[in-house]
Amino acid sequence: MKKINVLEKFSLFNEKWTPKIIGELNGQQVKLAKLVNEFVWHSHENEDELFLIFKGTLNMEYRDRTEVLNEGDMVIVPKGVEHFPTVPEGEECWVMLFEPASTKHTGEVMHERTVENPEWI
Amino acid sequence: MKKINVLEKFSLFNEKWTPKIIGELNGQQVKLAKLVNEFVWHSHENEDELFLIFKGTLNMEYRDRTEVLNEGDMVIVPKGVEHFPTVPEGEECWVMLFEPASTKHTGEVMHERTVENPEWI
Repeated sequence: MKKINVLEKFSLFNEKWTPKIIGELNGQQVKLAKLVNEFVWHSHENEDELFLIFKGTLNMEYRDRTEVLNEGDMVIVPKGVEHFPTVPEGEECWVMLFEPASTKHTGEVMHERTVENPEWI
Repeated sequence: MKKINVLEKFSLFNEKWTPKIIGELNGQQVKLAKLVNEFVWHSHENEDELFLIFKGTLNMEYRDRTEVLNEGDMVIVPKGVEHFPTVPEGEECWVMLFEPASTKHTGEVMHERTVENPEWI
């Protein structure tokens, strides 16, 4: 119930594609992540996922199109929809994620990048 | 699955204390609201509620203290906790809310200000 300053939380870590938890409510978690280059194609079988951009540009690629998200944009990727987040070369993108506490960021794909137990900051 | 620009959505309405829905995921809704002056003391029996400030200042009063939230700050008010959001005189505060689809913004209190069926924008 203490207030959280989002940019202050972003300043606490520098790892990429490693979501950090900053809050939990109603079985959902609020996470922050710093993104560069590209992630992996994946989908979440049972969970919708919200991305809210705090800094930079995120290209959200779907199988049939790409959506370019900038600061202040958000998108909800419904469960089951394959997506491939990428960031323009040389840039960094900061996002807030909102998803069930159970969500793995690589979805159904187990990948060397999968973070099993995201850290609270 | 279309991207949503948050500030653009804020520009679509001007009513105060009247949450507008901009997204839904996992049974939760993302809402925007413009706040002035004060609301009502209330709590939510079964729902935690997230406030993320996009513009201005929100004083979140609890029975034992007040927390001042500015742009970029967020707070999660746990279920059952009485709160009384107020905005400094003459100012306007824009917030994003994240809460279960079932949440009434006045909580267990039925008030003339209670919006029964928030509108999608």
